[in-house]
Amino acid sequence: MDLVQAALAGERRALARLLSLIEDDGPEARQALAALHPHTGRAHIVGVTGAPGTGKSTLVNELAKVLRDQGHTVGVVAVDPTSPFSGGALLGDRVRMRDLAGDPGIFIRSMATRGSLGGLARATADVVRVLDAVGFEWVLVETVGVGQAEVDVARTAHTVVVVEAPGLGDDVQALKAGLLEIADILVVNKADRPGAAQTALALETTLDLGQNRPHDPHAWRPPVLQTVALNGRGVDDVVKAILDHRAYLRESGLWDRRERERARADLMRALEERLVARLLYHTGEEALEHWVDRIVAREIDVYGAAERLTEGFP
Amino acid sequence: MDLVQAALAGERRALARLLSLIEDDGPEARQALAALHPHTGRAHIVGVTGAPGTGKSTLVNELAKVLRDQGHTVGVVAVDPTSPFSGGALLGDRVRMRDLAGDPGIFIRSMATRGSLGGLARATADVVRVLDAVGFEWVLVETVGVGQAEVDVARTAHTVVVVEAPGLGDDVQALKAGLLEIADILVVNKADRPGAAQTALALETTLDLGQNRPHDPHAWRPPVLQTVALNGRGVDDVVKAILDHRAYLRESGLWDRRERERARADLMRALEERLVARLLYHTGEEALEHWVDRIVAREIDVYGAAERLTEGFP
Repeated sequence: MDLVQAALAGERRALARLLSLIEDDGPEARQALAALHPHTGRAHIVGVTGAPGTGKSTLVNELAKVLRDQGHTVGVVAVDPTSPFSGGALLGDRVRMRDLAGDPGIFIRSMATRGSLGGLARATADVVRVLDAVGFEWVLVETVGVGQAEVDVARTAHTVVVVEAPGLGDDVQALKAGLLEIADILVVNKADRPGAAQTALALETTLDLGQNRPHDPHAWRPPVLQTVALNGRGVDDVVKAILDHRAYLRESGLWDRRERERARADLMRALEERLVARLLYHTGEEALEHWVDRIVAREIDVYGAAERLTEGFP
Repeated sequence: MDLVQAALAGERRALARLLSLIEDDGPEARQALAALHPHTGRAHIVGVTGAPGTGKSTLVNELAKVLRDQGHTVGVVAVDPTSPFSGGALLGDRVRMRDLAGDPGIFIRSMATRGSLGGLARATADVVRVLDAVGFEWVLVETVGVGQAEVDVARTAHTVVVVEAPGLGDDVQALKAGLLEIADILVVNKADRPGAAQTALALETTLDLGQNRPHDPHAWRPPVLQTVALNGRGVDDVVKAILDHRAYLRESGLWDRRERERARADLMRALEERLVARLLYHTGEEALEHWVDRIVAREIDVYGAAERLTEGFP
């Protein structure tokens, strides 16, 4: 496939077209992904997640800048939870300018997410795979840390950075507990605001309480770092922590475990999609509507209908 | 099933046990749901959603109180995106007190949501179904309006209330666009804060711009209401708007369309789950691990592996 070859050769416009093809998810997309697969597995994937208002977009922007300044190539995938249009505006300017100016070492993609359940996770995983295949050494995936699909996307990264900020409302703070579980690195952003030290301390305390891992002196304890992403303060330390975590993953064998986890989650999703498509091809779409009618008429419940509809389909 | 009969007879403890059974999702749960299904279809389901910090929990609390004071029975399902523990604290006290004091006309359930993708949507739909079956006239489903699964849960309600608040950050405001599309009623909560009138005006303007529906004078235009949920101001008007919307749904035939949409979404989810379980029963879990190994070794990509794994499974 010419588009794949051109993207692998570093042609930027081919890459953009390839990504659009893949977001549209036709048969050509599947072929392209198969051709790209042998080239994947080299990028370090960093999930950056946190509640709205924590400034994680700005932090992602600064991380990309520091990595780029150190000579690395960086792909950024921004998963915007609602609008196909607002994605761009959320990303900071300096990195975006470089992207637009044609620096081949940086590439930014905003994902629109209105679609079926599961569609977001699939499309994001595919886009990350393409950026990995065409040679970006780092792929930063930014998701809002609320919502099951979004958290799942971040969870399958090699390194998960959870961003907090001081002084958000209770409603936002309550989101923390679930995110802490998946964090490899914790960042208190907007650390020039009052309450940053307390927020950091509270996170350390929560980590102490949550130590239900075996008491292994070699286990990874998520560092709690403070940044002011707006002026870049502390961002170098976050990059350093990501590199430390990467080394830890490699030495401990956890890297392979995370690779397997991501592959398994992706495969399960692909199986669901494929099996339902095949069933409906087999039964016809009318069969689906027939059973929807019967559910609405209260003649049968959803699980009963699923059972009947899959009868004779082993 | 005794538990189902007891719950249908209004026994509160039986209802709580039944819901736990259903959240655990065993074979007994499927039986219970089948037995309950003929009793469903009477409740009016209201999805209440909005970004963190808009005060939607307080609004749900006040809505429940007003409906209860008008003599209706109300079930509340609070979908808390992260923590199994924080759910309780987010709900206001007055309604919860009544619930705890054993008022049989009110029932509150908080859903924990850590689990597999799709698990949240399934469990919430099942819990709503049970509350409907045992006779609650109103079921209020509160979800955080960020995240694909969470928005999908709200979307399948009969009436969708989207909550905004003045003065949230840009990051939060950017979430609006996608939510507006699914709103039947818009509420600017915390309307005693500066900027409430502008927020309401901005929403009206966005609605004007988004009028891509045919210019039907009978079409529903989402009203934009202002509330201060903390002291109950304006909540009566929201209840009135929900009743208006309900009448509109009934007269326009949209009610049936929404029932079908919900049934179809639920059936698709049940099919996915069932088909993958059957496939893995057929092939054995080892087959899955075998293909995960090959994906990780870059011998085959995810979609290729899905194809091979489903070979011979029609």
